[in-house]
Amino acid sequence: MALIVQKYGGSSLESADRIKSVAERIVETKKAGNDVVVVCSAMGDTTDELLDLAERVNPTPPEREMDMLLTAGERISNALVAMAISAQGAEAWSFSGSQAGVVTTSAHGNARILDVTPGRVTEALAEGYVALVAGFQGVSQDTKDVTTLGRGGSDTTAVALAAALDADECEIYSDVDGVYSADPRIVNDARKIDTIPYEEMLELAATGSKILHLRAVEYARRYGVPLRVRSSYSSKPGTLVTGSIEEIPVEQALITGVSHDTSEAKITVTDVPDYEGAAAKIFRAVADAEIDIDMVLQNVSRTSSGVTDITFTLSKSNTEEAVKALEHVREDAGFDAVLCDENVGKVSLVGAGMRSHPGVTATFCESLANAGVNIEIINTSEIRISVLIRDADVDAAVQALHGAFGLGGDEEAVVYAGSGR
Amino acid sequence: MALIVQKYGGSSLESADRIKSVAERIVETKKAGNDVVVVCSAMGDTTDELLDLAERVNPTPPEREMDMLLTAGERISNALVAMAISAQGAEAWSFSGSQAGVVTTSAHGNARILDVTPGRVTEALAEGYVALVAGFQGVSQDTKDVTTLGRGGSDTTAVALAAALDADECEIYSDVDGVYSADPRIVNDARKIDTIPYEEMLELAATGSKILHLRAVEYARRYGVPLRVRSSYSSKPGTLVTGSIEEIPVEQALITGVSHDTSEAKITVTDVPDYEGAAAKIFRAVADAEIDIDMVLQNVSRTSSGVTDITFTLSKSNTEEAVKALEHVREDAGFDAVLCDENVGKVSLVGAGMRSHPGVTATFCESLANAGVNIEIINTSEIRISVLIRDADVDAAVQALHGAFGLGGDEEAVVYAGSGR
Repeated sequence: MALIVQKYGGSSLESADRIKSVAERIVETKKAGNDVVVVCSAMGDTTDELLDLAERVNPTPPEREMDMLLTAGERISNALVAMAISAQGAEAWSFSGSQAGVVTTSAHGNARILDVTPGRVTEALAEGYVALVAGFQGVSQDTKDVTTLGRGGSDTTAVALAAALDADECEIYSDVDGVYSADPRIVNDARKIDTIPYEEMLELAATGSKILHLRAVEYARRYGVPLRVRSSYSSKPGTLVTGSIEEIPVEQALITGVSHDTSEAKITVTDVPDYEGAAAKIFRAVADAEIDIDMVLQNVSRTSSGVTDITFTLSKSNTEEAVKALEHVREDAGFDAVLCDENVGKVSLVGAGMRSHPGVTATFCESLANAGVNIEIINTSEIRISVLIRDADVDAAVQALHGAFGLGGDEEAVVYAGSGR
Repeated sequence: MALIVQKYGGSSLESADRIKSVAERIVETKKAGNDVVVVCSAMGDTTDELLDLAERVNPTPPEREMDMLLTAGERISNALVAMAISAQGAEAWSFSGSQAGVVTTSAHGNARILDVTPGRVTEALAEGYVALVAGFQGVSQDTKDVTTLGRGGSDTTAVALAAALDADECEIYSDVDGVYSADPRIVNDARKIDTIPYEEMLELAATGSKILHLRAVEYARRYGVPLRVRSSYSSKPGTLVTGSIEEIPVEQALITGVSHDTSEAKITVTDVPDYEGAAAKIFRAVADAEIDIDMVLQNVSRTSSGVTDITFTLSKSNTEEAVKALEHVREDAGFDAVLCDENVGKVSLVGAGMRSHPGVTATFCESLANAGVNIEIINTSEIRISVLIRDADVDAAVQALHGAFGLGGDEEAVVYAGSGR
């Protein structure tokens, strides 16, 4: 008998019929002799509908109340799944995040989990119930107010519960049946990955793979929770995220996959004076606006002029604010202009194998050159190479790299529309 | 400075615009120097939509989960009202029933309030916030599960909070601007009542007046909470429910109003053997099915036959179940048949004045006779006379009684469509 945590995203719960199939799978897992804890996101469009209502009564709503509002969505889906389970011959109790002991900071809208004390969940399991926990929400340690965990919150709830309960596995259900060597919508022979170490999954999640949220993978790695990515539409085993690249013998380490991301923009600050501190003023201005930057390129000073250009990438949603923050320090920092370019894309190659194969970077650059793709910025970690290119070149670049490193498989990829929170 | 509790029903909150007007009224009350506690029902159709979803995943859902599901509705409306208040220059905190200290029995779907410990509400008021409390919900003392209070739950939440906080007044907002001497849709010159003692309001609520729930009025009487019935569409003072008929000098006691109810059906059990215990078996069968009965008529035994008929009224929604329960004991109790009649209506005259005016019953019967209305059952309390008649005669009976006792006023009645929970 194992203890399994299952997490279902909003698209898996978008209608009464989908809720019934989810309940069927839960009851099956229970009847196979397992203890089952389930974390549900809000149904399909619920969150968007609530956001829309909020916008109509107050365009800048207080964050505490926003959390009170949004957490209703997960309570609804959890209660409905509990009812559907009961209709199929098992019994379930649903718990709010607070009832399940998900204790967080009081940062409304983006709270961090501080502790999980799932006493009531353990009790429910001991009495033979399926325990359902509302994802994405917790209770503030200080104020006892309802909080939400921000993006990827329900995945994080599931992993945190799995860690606190010492679960055998945490299954994340969505509309794709696993992690692929590249986006199957771009690469026909993308191969489903059976097992992937945490570090590689982190790099994929950080560079555009939408299937798992970075935060949840980090949490799983920290507590050694085996994560399984599965489709709620099939019974395939999916992809297991577990183990460290340190445990893989060097000769077995491989290149794992290609990810891409078109959600970033590029900002170039031109004619920055070439003295110490000018660059610092620029990055401080952006940091003070609480904007994260990703890739950075500082051109070599043009000797004749004594000035340089600084280029960096950031989320497209932050460009407007970043430009404003930079214009504010233009005079003080002494640069000329802020240029913004949204037609960029990032393509990354990930795999522990590149640590021991020095030719990887060369093959990487050659294959892009052969595909006619121009590299604007390059950026690497121990197990990743990322490049910034034109967004129109992204598909070609992904296909070229996937082919050059022989990542293709035989099985046909299965992809469904939609995605959960 | 006073402490005011305001309760808004679902129709007062059915859209973003309605929520904004409710917020306006709350902020006005706050800015006039009062401490304000607000109890909101779920928005318009939310509860029906949730019930429909539940029905689709499980036609007989577990009650614990039903409560978890339905309570989301009040959380949503409360959070939205808090946001709307914030947009209008005051600040508000919303609390779930559990957070506000509404402690109940564990009877899911129909829990009773055991205690109210509104520490967090008092704290919010002390810090200058408007405190919003989700109506209709509480937390079970034993299991710590979320419960709902059943029909009239939000009114009861408001009154219970007003009692616990020792509020100066509890205002119940709906779509009518007070308690009337009769339903203004039936009687043109129905008069709005300015003040009414608890006992009379209880009789009106028990005999068909929909404006206040019996349970909330009972709670208000027990704790001496002044209740004010007002319209959320106007600024009129409405009707104040306060004081006891015992405090009214006999010579000032009057007839207050006429109520009617067409939600009941009549069941007649025929040829019941005239021995002790036969009637008991009949009423026990109905009671065991947890069905409340209202008026009862046992005909005098027909000497020649040694049998009698027993007639009683009950809610139309219970007739099917009652007939089934009775058929089950037919052989044992020895009666002949169960007849069911849904075409009945009840009309009641209420007023402390009838205690000291012996002619009231005579005038009552004469006026109905003059209007051609036949009385099937008559039933009285110290301050009420009720009769069961044909449902087609209800309007004529209400008009006749209203006229005969001179209850009319000059002001035009204001009635809006819809009603809250």
